[in-house]
Amino acid sequence: MTLQELLGIELPLIQAPMAGVQGSALAIAVSNAGGLGSLPCAMLAPEAQRAELETIRAQTARPYNVNFFCHRPPEPDAAREGAWRAALATYYAEYGIDAATIPTGPGRRPFDASAAELLAEFKPPVVSFHFGLPDETLLARVRGWGSKILSSATTVDEARWLEARGVDAIIAQGLEAGGHRGIFLSEDLSTQVGTFALLPQIVRAVKVPVIAAGGIADAAGVRAVLSLGAVAAQVGTAYLLCPEARTSAVHRAALQGEAARHTALTNLYTGRPARGILTRLMREQGPLNAMAPAFPLAAAVVAPLRAQAEAAGSGDFSPLWAGQNTSGCRAVPAAQLTRELVGR
Amino acid sequence: MTLQELLGIELPLIQAPMAGVQGSALAIAVSNAGGLGSLPCAMLAPEAQRAELETIRAQTARPYNVNFFCHRPPEPDAAREGAWRAALATYYAEYGIDAATIPTGPGRRPFDASAAELLAEFKPPVVSFHFGLPDETLLARVRGWGSKILSSATTVDEARWLEARGVDAIIAQGLEAGGHRGIFLSEDLSTQVGTFALLPQIVRAVKVPVIAAGGIADAAGVRAVLSLGAVAAQVGTAYLLCPEARTSAVHRAALQGEAARHTALTNLYTGRPARGILTRLMREQGPLNAMAPAFPLAAAVVAPLRAQAEAAGSGDFSPLWAGQNTSGCRAVPAAQLTRELVGR
Repeated sequence: MTLQELLGIELPLIQAPMAGVQGSALAIAVSNAGGLGSLPCAMLAPEAQRAELETIRAQTARPYNVNFFCHRPPEPDAAREGAWRAALATYYAEYGIDAATIPTGPGRRPFDASAAELLAEFKPPVVSFHFGLPDETLLARVRGWGSKILSSATTVDEARWLEARGVDAIIAQGLEAGGHRGIFLSEDLSTQVGTFALLPQIVRAVKVPVIAAGGIADAAGVRAVLSLGAVAAQVGTAYLLCPEARTSAVHRAALQGEAARHTALTNLYTGRPARGILTRLMREQGPLNAMAPAFPLAAAVVAPLRAQAEAAGSGDFSPLWAGQNTSGCRAVPAAQLTRELVGR
Repeated sequence: MTLQELLGIELPLIQAPMAGVQGSALAIAVSNAGGLGSLPCAMLAPEAQRAELETIRAQTARPYNVNFFCHRPPEPDAAREGAWRAALATYYAEYGIDAATIPTGPGRRPFDASAAELLAEFKPPVVSFHFGLPDETLLARVRGWGSKILSSATTVDEARWLEARGVDAIIAQGLEAGGHRGIFLSEDLSTQVGTFALLPQIVRAVKVPVIAAGGIADAAGVRAVLSLGAVAAQVGTAYLLCPEARTSAVHRAALQGEAARHTALTNLYTGRPARGILTRLMREQGPLNAMAPAFPLAAAVVAPLRAQAEAAGSGDFSPLWAGQNTSGCRAVPAAQLTRELVGR
């Protein structure tokens, strides 16, 4: 079965959910153009989530995807967070921020019973998860609505794990991909491989359809993953300059410069490794720093620095999420980009 | 111009030179099958190199490639090497090796005037370099014979650098590739990106033909890189089980097991980062260890451990070079593999 048949979409293309830089507008534009638009919910409070879902329902009759993180919230660790705040003290001083006033808190919610409660009102055609899957009871609930279930695999082992739990399709997330690595069976980043290596090995290892993600920036890229056995491509970075995305001004500027060619995996902005353009914070603290608080607690520590720096036009403390291939980023309407990505 | 026209070959396929695991036999088989076979010279003494070139000339009338490293030999650093030997002391003890008897020495030669002298007798149709290019005088000499010149780029900057120096084609070496990273303008491994990201960006940045390497394991992979703008694929790992390769028994065994799915870049075996299957040495010392002597001096320090371990059937101390995609490794004649890689 093609992914189009499975999900009821016209084009073999999924717009990657990108929490923090897009909402319903991008999802609607892509779904109406025949791809699968995605609403990332990890950073949405329940009321915002409801409003976004209502907007999507009102503005498209086509299938759409709702995306959730399914991490286990960590125990707060005051000592670790204190040490990290101390490491950032010179930055706080530089921006005149009183570290004592910085709120703590998770910033990103996992899919849980209350999220399922809200989602039950919408019964979205597709629900995708990152960092594995929610527990069996919650997953059964989603399945009960008839929603098709997707999740990301970053290794062959993860793909087999997801298949055994009954997902409808697997997203093979190559190391080129921007944003959070979906890795969930291990913390060893040396297990993470490029799309060219990951995709064919997952295609060979599982029977469910496989969607390719990571480094796909244009129609040639989409053709290439289809010829490697994918049923569809998931594309994120290329959409970041679209007017429907809420990408910040500093992020848009970085994506269009030479700096965009140098990305790294970093845990400084959230606590989990995610790929973004190198920033001052990443350069000075090392992109992967064991002191950064556990996911998602690291976000609050950097948030005030980010806010002040961005207000001054600087992305020094911003998560400038991007994949390794920004050559497809263009400031064109998402519907046009969607059609061009599949060569129409 | 297609690469076939440029190099006079029939198929858009180059067999990657793999020093230490192959010689003329593999190169001849691939060239006679219509691809471009490659003879790696980095580990060949002059007389062996002459013998191999004579064998090639006798056994194929088709174009072939002769490959050289062009690193700058390092100053020996007795303190660093002593510290590293001390770090490995427990292993030497385990195998009853007297560390004082271990010879030092480079193990790998760069392309130099004497190598050019020897090569002038053969005027090979194609000469490829790794780690940049030799100096202008030497390069002009190679060009003077009519040899086409190739070199590897691991970043867009390196591709532009090579184009400016007049190479005939550039090999875009994605991070999936096995063996030594060709990186030469930087030592920052965070600049290294996957084939899916590297290839289209290099294709866009230069006018010379671009050959893709890294993660290409079968006909679908070759089609995929052609659709991403490459004029040909360079494939190494897939050839490692061919009878014409001299891949060791422990290396062959590792390539066929689950272990092959987990590779890493390591500097432990030579001093420069190269991708191989994780071994005991890499796990215990960390695959990238700043104590390891500079390239190529690290090789001699590990050599006796490797020899003893391999004699006992263990690959614990062996460089088990492999790319991230070993799914195409098959114990079939190289001619058959070559044809299958291009779908014939």
